[in-house]
Amino acid sequence: MQVSAEDVRTSAVRAKRAAAALAPLSRAAKDAALLGMADALLARADELLAANAEDVAAAQAAGTAAAMVDRLTLTEARLAGMADGLRQVAGLEDPVGEVLRGRVLPNGMELRQVRVPLGVVGIIYEARPNVTVDAAGLCLKSGNAALLRGSASAVRSNTALVGVLRDAAEAAGLPADAVQLVPGVDHESVKHLMRLRGLVDVLIPRGGAGLIRAVVEESTVPVIETGVGNCHVYVDATADLDMAVAIAINSKTQRVSVCNSAETLLVHADVADEFLPRVLAALTEAGVTVHGDDAVRAVAPGALAATEDDWAAEYLSLDLAVRVVPSLDAAVEHIRAYSSGHTEAIVTRSLAASRRFIATCDSAAIMVNASTRFTDGERFGMGAEIGISTQKLHARGPMGLPELTSTTWVGIGDGHVV
Amino acid sequence: MQVSAEDVRTSAVRAKRAAAALAPLSRAAKDAALLGMADALLARADELLAANAEDVAAAQAAGTAAAMVDRLTLTEARLAGMADGLRQVAGLEDPVGEVLRGRVLPNGMELRQVRVPLGVVGIIYEARPNVTVDAAGLCLKSGNAALLRGSASAVRSNTALVGVLRDAAEAAGLPADAVQLVPGVDHESVKHLMRLRGLVDVLIPRGGAGLIRAVVEESTVPVIETGVGNCHVYVDATADLDMAVAIAINSKTQRVSVCNSAETLLVHADVADEFLPRVLAALTEAGVTVHGDDAVRAVAPGALAATEDDWAAEYLSLDLAVRVVPSLDAAVEHIRAYSSGHTEAIVTRSLAASRRFIATCDSAAIMVNASTRFTDGERFGMGAEIGISTQKLHARGPMGLPELTSTTWVGIGDGHVV
Repeated sequence: MQVSAEDVRTSAVRAKRAAAALAPLSRAAKDAALLGMADALLARADELLAANAEDVAAAQAAGTAAAMVDRLTLTEARLAGMADGLRQVAGLEDPVGEVLRGRVLPNGMELRQVRVPLGVVGIIYEARPNVTVDAAGLCLKSGNAALLRGSASAVRSNTALVGVLRDAAEAAGLPADAVQLVPGVDHESVKHLMRLRGLVDVLIPRGGAGLIRAVVEESTVPVIETGVGNCHVYVDATADLDMAVAIAINSKTQRVSVCNSAETLLVHADVADEFLPRVLAALTEAGVTVHGDDAVRAVAPGALAATEDDWAAEYLSLDLAVRVVPSLDAAVEHIRAYSSGHTEAIVTRSLAASRRFIATCDSAAIMVNASTRFTDGERFGMGAEIGISTQKLHARGPMGLPELTSTTWVGIGDGHVV
Repeated sequence: MQVSAEDVRTSAVRAKRAAAALAPLSRAAKDAALLGMADALLARADELLAANAEDVAAAQAAGTAAAMVDRLTLTEARLAGMADGLRQVAGLEDPVGEVLRGRVLPNGMELRQVRVPLGVVGIIYEARPNVTVDAAGLCLKSGNAALLRGSASAVRSNTALVGVLRDAAEAAGLPADAVQLVPGVDHESVKHLMRLRGLVDVLIPRGGAGLIRAVVEESTVPVIETGVGNCHVYVDATADLDMAVAIAINSKTQRVSVCNSAETLLVHADVADEFLPRVLAALTEAGVTVHGDDAVRAVAPGALAATEDDWAAEYLSLDLAVRVVPSLDAAVEHIRAYSSGHTEAIVTRSLAASRRFIATCDSAAIMVNASTRFTDGERFGMGAEIGISTQKLHARGPMGLPELTSTTWVGIGDGHVV
């Protein structure tokens, strides 16, 4: 059954009303609801696992790949992990109410800038049901109403999870509409959601590049782009080459399916002769397929010839593009041309080179003598993250609770007029 | 002659290249260019005034209203004002490089979040040529390349101004493309500009609600909405009524054509009998036309009947919608329903009422016992502003230099891998 624009709009109107009730809540009230949600996930595990089993059976019947089915599957242990996640969010500082700037103006008025919730946060995501709980928890803690749009393959699981979360919210005295599943599982429901500017304050697509591009193209609601990572490791002329091998291998192979893994290795020509054989041997040993330029293929005749597509690719696999560059500035030029703006790493002993790389790259995170894999909310000490923004507006890099807020200016006078 | 998509794209590519050169510049280099630009505006006043005279003559020949012609007109004094504005921007702190957060992670890596330029900032504006210089100055100081799209009526003035600014940039050793006028004066050139996601980092429309709505609807480039102000003054049950009259009159009449002037007055029912006759007399004396609900018209039979359109209107004229509400919460509900999210004022003696109003309104600025007219970058002590954002993402309220930046995470290790 196709969902109507009016159905989606109605859920957004309800979310906006819930957001008005959530905005003034104390941290204590929000934490109590989060802990209640965590308990409810465990208490009602049977019905959650039963709903999930239907999704899993349908996916298997449809011939879905085993890895996808695994991602979809809930277990007691995974539910416990989701409950733990909610408890961890309860333990984080409340971003709402934080005073960012403040002063007394020359005319005696008090002025301060404070964090406030964004309002209604729409999240469009694929596959894993745990995103449903993570996103709901982060939105609630930051005082936002969550409008969740999961994938069709997980709709029974997500419906059951959201039902449990809504009951727990109400039991804690919060509006159930703090968390809603957007009605409908077809693309139409996403289309309707993307047109609700004024009701929905931000849309965060989490998923593949195709989903994100579609949302960016069609949405009138402001969008935060997340997660596409064409990350680079640049080995400078002055690099410690043992360190460079370790960082290249770690950035590429430690986990290939994630956005902060490296997809291109750039090597300064001055160290290419010494470094390339070593890194190519290590890459081969790790099972990596190399797509190289002519200089690389001269050393490694077995490497595939890199094309324009390779420089731009987010492989998310054991593939790596490798190029020799004449200078640091040429490396940066390559990165500015092809990067998705996620994370770039430089391996160097030179302070001047590190400063130049930091100042001229244009990405969310720059790592000096460290793996690209460090760009992550948990590793940055933020606690849970809702995604990694690769755009420049509002939030850039891992998005934790403060990134789910806006600000308001508060001016207090005693009859001040202009 | 209609401009092609390729022409507009070419200017954006040049802007992006200039942005890469601007990003690592020191404050000293940028300030020197700003001061050179200020000097050049005065040194080349004759050619600027001559170009402007052609715009003014064309506007007059087209029968343009005198107030519009006045806004378009440049004089020696106005050029001096623009030069002063550039000097003031040179005097402001450089936002680029500011460290917003930083720590050493448990693994020994240094991590810090630093302000960086946005990159290429597109500004679409109407009428006044002074915006050309103000916007160019703010963009340059924040390390951004400016792509300026002024109105057709000011094209000769803007072309001449941008020519002078570009020459001064080059004379100071900066790329001339730090400042460009988008080619073309028809709507097509704006359309092309709005599709350059990836080349243009943000679009800031400055102008009427129609322009802003069109940009928001059509742009794939992220947009910051500015300037539409349906601002409210709410007179609480405990208000000092003399103060309330003064704030209502100031908010409405001190300057009617600006976005931070008030358009609706909400009055708590408990004080309506005493307050309404006094404020209506003062409004009438100030030449204000009142659009009231039934309770208001019972006191002021001459008032027009307010409609839904009146509650939503940004009059920008000596008109004011007036409504009696049964409670503070009802006032907030009205504001949440009709406000453009710019500025709301409450007049009250009650601390609890002020706290509730601040916590439940959902606007860029809240004034307690002060005029809505205070929401302004200069009055907030920010120096010049590029506009007042009424959206929640990235920047909210007056946008100064920090609001024209993004951030980058910098991680420094010594061979750290995951």
